[in-house]
Amino acid sequence: MHVKALEVMLQTNSLPCNMKIIIEGEEEVGSANLGSFLQKHKEKLKADVILISDTSIIANDTPSIDVGLRGLTYMEVEVTGPNRDLHSGVYGGAVANPVNVLCKMIASLHDENFHITIPGFYDNVLALNENEKADLNRAPFNLENYKKDLGIDDVQGEKGFTTLERTGTRPTLDVNGIWGGYTGEGAKTVLPSKANAKISMRLVPNMTSDGIAKLFEAHFKKIAPKSVKVKVAVHHGGEPVVVSTTSQAYLAAAKAMEETYGKKPIPTRGGGSIPIVALFKSVLGLDSVLFGFGLDSDALHSPNEHYGIFNYFKGIETIPLFYRNYVAMTKK
Amino acid sequence: MHVKALEVMLQTNSLPCNMKIIIEGEEEVGSANLGSFLQKHKEKLKADVILISDTSIIANDTPSIDVGLRGLTYMEVEVTGPNRDLHSGVYGGAVANPVNVLCKMIASLHDENFHITIPGFYDNVLALNENEKADLNRAPFNLENYKKDLGIDDVQGEKGFTTLERTGTRPTLDVNGIWGGYTGEGAKTVLPSKANAKISMRLVPNMTSDGIAKLFEAHFKKIAPKSVKVKVAVHHGGEPVVVSTTSQAYLAAAKAMEETYGKKPIPTRGGGSIPIVALFKSVLGLDSVLFGFGLDSDALHSPNEHYGIFNYFKGIETIPLFYRNYVAMTKK
Repeated sequence: MHVKALEVMLQTNSLPCNMKIIIEGEEEVGSANLGSFLQKHKEKLKADVILISDTSIIANDTPSIDVGLRGLTYMEVEVTGPNRDLHSGVYGGAVANPVNVLCKMIASLHDENFHITIPGFYDNVLALNENEKADLNRAPFNLENYKKDLGIDDVQGEKGFTTLERTGTRPTLDVNGIWGGYTGEGAKTVLPSKANAKISMRLVPNMTSDGIAKLFEAHFKKIAPKSVKVKVAVHHGGEPVVVSTTSQAYLAAAKAMEETYGKKPIPTRGGGSIPIVALFKSVLGLDSVLFGFGLDSDALHSPNEHYGIFNYFKGIETIPLFYRNYVAMTKK
Repeated sequence: MHVKALEVMLQTNSLPCNMKIIIEGEEEVGSANLGSFLQKHKEKLKADVILISDTSIIANDTPSIDVGLRGLTYMEVEVTGPNRDLHSGVYGGAVANPVNVLCKMIASLHDENFHITIPGFYDNVLALNENEKADLNRAPFNLENYKKDLGIDDVQGEKGFTTLERTGTRPTLDVNGIWGGYTGEGAKTVLPSKANAKISMRLVPNMTSDGIAKLFEAHFKKIAPKSVKVKVAVHHGGEPVVVSTTSQAYLAAAKAMEETYGKKPIPTRGGGSIPIVALFKSVLGLDSVLFGFGLDSDALHSPNEHYGIFNYFKGIETIPLFYRNYVAMTKK
């Protein structure tokens, strides 16, 4: 592998284009400063195309290129009942318990078909046409292996959509964290004063992060019973992205993969969010090609996150060919 | 006050009866060892009546005696979705989120009238007759002051019952603690592997702690979707209690209070649980008189729990009169 990688690098011999490198250390906390950095250095950062290696392929024998990314709206909520923790015996049954109330409010955000119930939530969702759906579902996907890998007896999601459609093309609402009351060992008969949750939504074109944050806040406050008080705050967000499969950048990347993997890559839609893609487009006017070599089984954001040696070297082999192909195609 | 207390103690002059004292240090963690202790020392602990000072009066100018205590069933549940924390973008929308699932399960445990939905839950609940209801609601209670004290805009509870009925005579189901996913500062886009909650139920006659634990466990497992696994464990419990208002012990206590407060005490039903009362009855065959002098505003189980000097000395004044009265009444 090592030798092959070296060979390919020697084959392309020299860098056939100029290169500007941005290392973004704030991506996981919302890239709060990247927008103003791009604005400030707009001239310096002029380019033809942006290459980002932060996505996955379907499998090591099935190359793919992400052509869509979901956006993100991340909220934090606090539900307050009584002004202090109470004895659940003395007050239980007569005073609203903010944990029970929060659970009920969260439960009501999905209906029985796992549609999200926030009014207007789906208004700007771009539905896939039948061809796009067929393309997407052509990606190899084995439901039994998927369930086995995750240790689950069944998948669960929006009615009327496949697993690949659910993660790639549909918006979501997930509780990322919840806490309230006594959470230590043993038992404490407390009726808590407060309950909190972190709730995030993945967005698809043409939803906007700010728009969804506003819809969420208005709805969450509206469904709160009179027996509690509710606070809603916005964490970072990001816009959804779709990349064209007919652009020269996409074609150059696809050709490079075909050369190193011996197979045409499949265009896929990733469920994650890379908010800087939308920023590069809006501030610099540049398209990105999402040219990553990881695997979904790398356990991103989980314990034992890892990256395979095979994938590492495959990236080293393939990326130089993209430079060569892109330069050759755009010189014509 | 001090002088008055001393005076009363001097008045009764000497202890008119034998006394056995039990100091129970495990009450808040379920009195796991008291049952076997009572069994072992059954002979030594023989007595006529048990006096427990662990309850409240309505107000410092409105004496009362608890004649009912709710029992308790305390459960802990764990809902597991995927076998590891997942990236909420890559998997969100296709894999059941255990926090969302737990919220939905908890929400379903009450209907829109705040009745508990566990099948069979109310089967053994002893309903109050109209006289008992009228007695109970004769206790002074100001809803506006109650709401103001707790800082809430509205009370909330089972439809068709007053606040005093809800806390004194009806069973409840409260989440005492909930946790799952990321609960630190800022945002983390995790789809958690697990969600946990501590859920307790207050019981009224003639519900049994074990019986309700079994109903809860069966129901909670039944309502879990196939996409998650559920574990249910039982923490400590306690049986509900009703004390007769015509027993000599009650009459002796009521007379003592009338002497020191200048008013007949009102029989009330406390919402809390003192599981040892049921234990004393079942193991030793003894009735307890619940002769406490605290206030609901003492912030039991809350930050700044306290006990007033007035109440402390009032207890010292009143309890010796109970001994005197009880001995006099039972000697007849």
